[in-house]
Amino acid sequence: MYTVRVRDHFMIAHSFRGDVFGPAQKLHGATYVVDVEFRSPELDADGIVVDIGLATETVHKILGELNYRNLDDEASLKGRNTTTEVLARTIFDRLAAAIGRGDLGRSAKAIESLRVTLNESHVASASYEGRV
Amino acid sequence: MYTVRVRDHFMIAHSFRGDVFGPAQKLHGATYVVDVEFRSPELDADGIVVDIGLATETVHKILGELNYRNLDDEASLKGRNTTTEVLARTIFDRLAAAIGRGDLGRSAKAIESLRVTLNESHVASASYEGRV
Amino acid sequence: MYTVRVRDHFMIAHSFRGDVFGPAQKLHGATYVVDVEFRSPELDADGIVVDIGLATETVHKILGELNYRNLDDEASLKGRNTTTEVLARTIFDRLAAAIGRGDLGRSAKAIESLRVTLNESHVASASYEGRV
Amino acid sequence: MYTVRVRDHFMIAHSFRGDVFGPAQKLHGATYVVDVEFRSPELDADGIVVDIGLATETVHKILGELNYRNLDDEASLKGRNTTTEVLARTIFDRLAAAIGRGDLGRSAKAIESLRVTLNESHVASASYEGRV
Amino acid sequence: MYTVRVRDHFMIAHSFRGDVFGPAQKLHGATYVVDVEFRSPELDADGIVVDIGLATETVHKILGELNYRNLDDEASLKGRNTTTEVLARTIFDRLAAAIGRGDLGRSAKAIESLRVTLNESHVASASYEGRV
Amino acid sequence: MYTVRVRDHFMIAHSFRGDVFGPAQKLHGATYVVDVEFRSPELDADGIVVDIGLATETVHKILGELNYRNLDDEASLKGRNTTTEVLARTIFDRLAAAIGRGDLGRSAKAIESLRVTLNESHVASASYEGRV
Repeated sequence: MYTVRVRDHFMIAHSFRGDVFGPAQKLHGATYVVDVEFRSPELDADGIVVDIGLATETVHKILGELNYRNLDDEASLKGRNTTTEVLARTIFDRLAAAIGRGDLGRSAKAIESLRVTLNESHVASASYEGRV
Repeated sequence: MYTVRVRDHFMIAHSFRGDVFGPAQKLHGATYVVDVEFRSPELDADGIVVDIGLATETVHKILGELNYRNLDDEASLKGRNTTTEVLARTIFDRLAAAIGRGDLGRSAKAIESLRVTLNESHVASASYEGRV
Repeated sequence: MYTVRVRDHFMIAHSFRGDVFGPAQKLHGATYVVDVEFRSPELDADGIVVDIGLATETVHKILGELNYRNLDDEASLKGRNTTTEVLARTIFDRLAAAIGRGDLGRSAKAIESLRVTLNESHVASASYEGRV
Repeated sequence: MYTVRVRDHFMIAHSFRGDVFGPAQKLHGATYVVDVEFRSPELDADGIVVDIGLATETVHKILGELNYRNLDDEASLKGRNTTTEVLARTIFDRLAAAIGRGDLGRSAKAIESLRVTLNESHVASASYEGRV
Repeated sequence: MYTVRVRDHFMIAHSFRGDVFGPAQKLHGATYVVDVEFRSPELDADGIVVDIGLATETVHKILGELNYRNLDDEASLKGRNTTTEVLARTIFDRLAAAIGRGDLGRSAKAIESLRVTLNESHVASASYEGRV
Repeated sequence: MYTVRVRDHFMIAHSFRGDVFGPAQKLHGATYVVDVEFRSPELDADGIVVDIGLATETVHKILGELNYRNLDDEASLKGRNTTTEVLARTIFDRLAAAIGRGDLGRSAKAIESLRVTLNESHVASASYEGRV
């Protein structure tokens, strides 16, 4: 299995509902350094998993829809805690949809699965991985 | 599959038995920077894999049982080489037991597997992963 | 010159005033991974620059006064843009005051200067350094 | 499952054929920081996955066959784009052959799979993993 | 003293002349992960050392003049070994000129010095720092 | 000012004397990931601060005198706490002596100062810097 990984980041404000979150129930924020892994069992004729230029642009555009926002005000995330886990899944779903639409080009058709990791500090991260 | 990762460290002395270890047969030591990954197919109602506060505390307590020790003198590790691989498994087993006892709370019940990685330098690490 | 460095982090929401900030004028947030460097020309009789336990606790307490907050609502920061540079200086000033009060103990008396670095992502940071 | 990881690097020149590569069609180069993961379900009697000394030497020797070269001139890579993905696979194949020849010693016999990751910058990497 | 740091990278081919370089006398290449530090004793009215958007763009443009090239063919570098040290100085000089031309805007006028670091692997880097 | 940095590591056991060290008074150990910075105002005719091959070898040899040891038994360190600060100074002194003896070759004659940093974990380090 081949994997290609690209890194980018976004910076948001949010708050959580639920006693388990303690002081994180207050409005605070985070930088998420995001690693997206694209997995494919075969390479295309050019010798790549995916056009890394298109992959980088698409990831940047998807993160741009969240960047510099207060996630408590985002209609698309209403009624949910925007935990690192939930955001990893949100980005996974949007990226899977982009691949489905053909945004990542011809070579992306062989992509079998994705893993999206959000590093929230030097000591914690969360990921979601699944088939596309 | 969702993954949450937390990082901590511990510092120990030890020595190895066996020609394969060369100069590491002498008493020396290591800092292990430890990454623990908790994996679950679903999130709980709060949108998390595990209460990260409880997870961090539990990992810290388990590492604290080894921290600032000479592992050659530890009764629980007697008769074994405390290689990075063996220590990764030891911490995995203790953490799996803690989850079994309910130390990580309600949300931890859905945890299917753990991966414990010990980074021993900028160029080497070892992991153990398995179901819990 | 000797330097001791410790690392910790905090997570906040804020917004900036001024066209130069572009989309960062909206409420957003950041994780700051903080490196504090303590510098001294001599070691004490124990062979240290500072009691690293006290240093770690004091840094953690100072970051705790900002952690999980919306900095736009913090009285002590009112009327200023809480840029990474300004926050580095704020933490420097609070830490210098703590050293002045003796919070870092006996060995900290020889500390000549501090450097406080806030890493806001994998591609950007800001620091303030000065004498204490 | 146990994993042992070792890190090394190599530095090469190359160029790519195909419009998808844009400016990388020109002769340029890269540093690849390489992580090799050795995976085994069991430890040997010494408590290890592999003799880390032999593993490090073997990886270094295999990377040495590519280090300080212009890959466009390498007979063994002729007719292929030496993308990060292709190089990850090339190193995987050479390492699998070395294990087959017994270069990694007795303990390496239990190794089930390898993962070879080439980090080409702070924002991109590619891997190949498979059974041996 | 305040410092702002931004990170970017470029990928080149080159070769060295001189016995001291051993196998690096052959055509090979490198990824350089570049950290540029901007230093100023005071912040401007917005609370910044430099418009980080302009700084990032300018650094990217300067690295773009070297990216995806064979430096042995670059007229501006003819007759010199393009060691990591020499490249750090080259980028420093080009960035100092850009600041002189006003490319980094109003706030950059207070910048006293720069440090340019080129990380060529996980184990080596070179820097040039000086006044502007 | 030019700087060249190389990285290596060593692994030791030791214990400390003094209440300030708390549990670190017991025999324990550490991995030190060591960064050595060589600083020079000018480059030599080859365009380098120092022969990086010789620098790497010399650092490796000096760390090798400490590697895989119990520092409590080392005659050259007797009667002192081998804190991270003290070890940074010890390595600095040995490296300065090596430069004085000419071990780093011709180009090293222009080296004005060194900085030796010992990273003992992901959250702590100590350095010593001075003229040679």
